[in-house]
Amino acid sequence: MRNIRMVVSYEGTRYFGFQTQPGGNTIQDAIEKALKLLTGETTEVISSGRTDAGVHARHQVINFLTESQIPIGRWALALNSRLPNDIVITEAHEAPLSFHARHSAKRKTYRYTINCSRYPDVFWRHMQFHHPTPLNVNEIAASLDCLIGEHDFTSFCSANSTKTSHVRKLFEAYLEYKEQEGHLHLYFTGSGFLQHMVRILVGTLIEVGEGKRKSADMERILQARDRSCAGPTAMAHGLMLWEVFYA
Amino acid sequence: MRNIRMVVSYEGTRYFGFQTQPGGNTIQDAIEKALKLLTGETTEVISSGRTDAGVHARHQVINFLTESQIPIGRWALALNSRLPNDIVITEAHEAPLSFHARHSAKRKTYRYTINCSRYPDVFWRHMQFHHPTPLNVNEIAASLDCLIGEHDFTSFCSANSTKTSHVRKLFEAYLEYKEQEGHLHLYFTGSGFLQHMVRILVGTLIEVGEGKRKSADMERILQARDRSCAGPTAMAHGLMLWEVFYA
Repeated sequence: MRNIRMVVSYEGTRYFGFQTQPGGNTIQDAIEKALKLLTGETTEVISSGRTDAGVHARHQVINFLTESQIPIGRWALALNSRLPNDIVITEAHEAPLSFHARHSAKRKTYRYTINCSRYPDVFWRHMQFHHPTPLNVNEIAASLDCLIGEHDFTSFCSANSTKTSHVRKLFEAYLEYKEQEGHLHLYFTGSGFLQHMVRILVGTLIEVGEGKRKSADMERILQARDRSCAGPTAMAHGLMLWEVFYA
Repeated sequence: MRNIRMVVSYEGTRYFGFQTQPGGNTIQDAIEKALKLLTGETTEVISSGRTDAGVHARHQVINFLTESQIPIGRWALALNSRLPNDIVITEAHEAPLSFHARHSAKRKTYRYTINCSRYPDVFWRHMQFHHPTPLNVNEIAASLDCLIGEHDFTSFCSANSTKTSHVRKLFEAYLEYKEQEGHLHLYFTGSGFLQHMVRILVGTLIEVGEGKRKSADMERILQARDRSCAGPTAMAHGLMLWEVFYA
């Protein structure tokens, strides 16, 4: 039995998220179907974590067990030719049997992109949230620092969460503003993320940028441990799983 | 009567090109339909030049005559809200009645993008030609210089052309290679372009990069004035109308 680890990028626009569900049409379903075509095996694909409907991935990590003898150098091309063209395998490696894409992950980075230009960028329209009214980027930047570290992120977690602990550690939270294109990228690197956590953080940060909240409010919202104190959940299509780290 | 000049960007993937045709589904049809919804007028939209099916535009220029009194600052937003989201108006200006998007154009720049990486870039898959086998970028660069200047481009023009002269002037022909992403951009700026001219130039340059032709062959192909001496017409989806100049 072999354990194969792969890096996969996808445009999530037309999928109901990563994880398989009764209605089908998920990234996991598409990859498992392509694997079945390639190897004849019914395989369960494990990811570093689910992504919501409409969320993209530049660098998602998956693994699966197989008895196939296909040489490691052939997997990516063979699978890509059986996948729809909005899902692309970009790396394939042999992994020890103990490797588990979710349990072994140490850190993950998400990127959220806001296009602050007056008009949408037609080529990035599915990967950017368009916010044409002014945002105070400095205020947003000022409110990021207090998020770094270990916190109870209950305020920034879907009220439907069934997790017993909402304590997570953020290693990095920073922004990159490309003034000429009007593209604002928000990067969050953490040990793990709760349901909708990045999107609720971004929805709240947008309200800070709009002047509806002060940057100093972020700390108070964290301490409240109450979802209703934070802002709305930002649109899914601006979010991209940027990288997953295993060391 | 007012003459309105606009800059429009579009992803050409699902259109049969810019110019209206009996089968419909063109960029021109979509813009004229949105104008009709907005102003009630039946208007002919003039562009700086047609683009083929599947070709994109970052900066296409159009103009049209109207009796509408809509203030100039409102046109772009009003039209965008009536257009499909793969067509975006990014500028609108009053123009003198003598302005004609095609006749007044002095120069145009096209960009052709080749992705030389092993695997496609999922987010740019509709805007890049994927060429995973090695290309000699230096050989391609070396063959660009002889194209600059005034030449008879019959060898690089569709055999169906009905133009009486195939003499055109190229002001610039250069490449930009982003090695890390594997993206090769080819830029061509000229007084005007013949049917399929950029795509045949690129199809021939790809053969130079593949080692099937020498860079020195380009001059011989130009001199032959025979379409059959050049390479194939490169795929439409790698091509983008980059900019149009009026001064």
